Amino acid sequence: MVEHVYRHRVRYRECDPMSVVYHAHYVDYFEAARTEALRAQGLPYKTLEDAGIIMPVVEMNVRYHQPARYDDLVEVTVRFPETPNVRVITEYEVRRAGEEPILVAGRVVLCFFDTARRRPVRAPQQLLDVFEHATP
Amino acid sequence: MVEHVYRHRVRYRECDPMSVVYHAHYVDYFEAARTEALRAQGLPYKTLEDAGIIMPVVEMNVRYHQPARYDDLVEVTVRFPETPNVRVITEYEVRRAGEEPILVAGRVVLCFFDTARRRPVRAPQQLLDVFEHATP
Amino acid sequence: MVEHVYRHRVRYRECDPMSVVYHAHYVDYFEAARTEALRAQGLPYKTLEDAGIIMPVVEMNVRYHQPARYDDLVEVTVRFPETPNVRVITEYEVRRAGEEPILVAGRVVLCFFDTARRRPVRAPQQLLDVFEHATP
Amino acid sequence: MVEHVYRHRVRYRECDPMSVVYHAHYVDYFEAARTEALRAQGLPYKTLEDAGIIMPVVEMNVRYHQPARYDDLVEVTVRFPETPNVRVITEYEVRRAGEEPILVAGRVVLCFFDTARRRPVRAPQQLLDVFEHATP
Repeated sequence: MVEHVYRHRVRYRECDPMSVVYHAHYVDYFEAARTEALRAQGLPYKTLEDAGIIMPVVEMNVRYHQPARYDDLVEVTVRFPETPNVRVITEYEVRRAGEEPILVAGRVVLCFFDTARRRPVRAPQQLLDVFEHATP
Repeated sequence: MVEHVYRHRVRYRECDPMSVVYHAHYVDYFEAARTEALRAQGLPYKTLEDAGIIMPVVEMNVRYHQPARYDDLVEVTVRFPETPNVRVITEYEVRRAGEEPILVAGRVVLCFFDTARRRPVRAPQQLLDVFEHATP
Repeated sequence: MVEHVYRHRVRYRECDPMSVVYHAHYVDYFEAARTEALRAQGLPYKTLEDAGIIMPVVEMNVRYHQPARYDDLVEVTVRFPETPNVRVITEYEVRRAGEEPILVAGRVVLCFFDTARRRPVRAPQQLLDVFEHATP
Repeated sequence: MVEHVYRHRVRYRECDPMSVVYHAHYVDYFEAARTEALRAQGLPYKTLEDAGIIMPVVEMNVRYHQPARYDDLVEVTVRFPETPNVRVITEYEVRRAGEEPILVAGRVVLCFFDTARRRPVRAPQQLLDVFEHATP
């Protein structure tokens, strides 16, 4: 299983009149977290895209428990619970740095699309290699 | 059941390097759609907020079937399938104007929070009135 | 001179903890206003882009006088003060609908870039035609 | 003079169909840069806001020379060229990390507003202290 913790400082532009992070922005945090998880495994997402593989999001679920606030330092833990096949599942937990409670939990499923052949494909070998080496 | 169709022109800033709407932005379309649905029923969301009731999002689910593209005119159909109680459920379907296929489908659940008493509350009477008059 | 008025309802996601529109979002309003101005003249920006001409922003100036607030209906007046050559100048005034005071004023300068030849070019004839017919 | 360098990884959601950073997002980078500059001087912007002082943007100027691209690591150098009085001037230069050319240059002017007294005020002493100690 691949796991990674991404840290982010909540910005003013991300907060709404309730003085908390507007709910859509956690989706952006998720993108940053999974991108940095792959980079930490030696596979920048850009490498896949340069090879003609894009990864559209096909499904997204988010549960909001407690709000993050302006200037909070949040930690987004991202997990890839299983080896990708035609889809890759990613799971997220957002916490304030150093605190236990989960503020927001999410799950994003992506697929693989070959831009040259213009059709969905299985997970590219480069990505499978990441999982082979990451799993104990 | 309250139902409303909100139309939106896809903007350049909403499209990503795949030349399609970045997945997080549909969440913004959903907010606009439910806001306009309530306004069409004579209850601007701002009226609730001015009365001290805010409506945090507690859950969100989105399925992406086909992408919307730059300059597409999209129609977001929003439905409130049941009378709100401690939560209000909203459901969404995004289509290109005049076309059948659902591009994106979503569901957003919100709750009610009394800012003065600082605690969750039931749906305010003003909102319940909307549903009483809207249901045949 | 080409002139157009674009109307926009201020969204929750656009407002910050000061309960006013976050300053960066006026830039998005400007994009929507100039796009709709060209569409109203019979030239969707997409037509230019499909013909291989993109229009990068080269300069932007904004002055903020008064804030717009959540749920305000704002009017963005956009003017193209002169016929484009290697650049096109666009000017903006944001007001609350039906009110006189200018909330925000802006100026955005764009150039023309031929994606096939990969270099800056002069304004395409399609755009010049718009100005020829629009000027009295 | 206060100066600070803020590093940012360009995100997918920030890039448009030209595959470059959409021009409005540099404004977000500027906000993050000046916020981190003040934090590095021991004065989180949040401290000012908690003390009842907010800092609305009154003017913004941006020149775009070259685009930043997806996954670029950019450095935003922010400078406060003079001691604030009724306004504070901030200047920005965006570069790819380790490269000389300026991609984007900006200038943002902010003022000070006392939320309790509901009127513009001079720079708070806490901020002036930063400049006194920072200037050689």
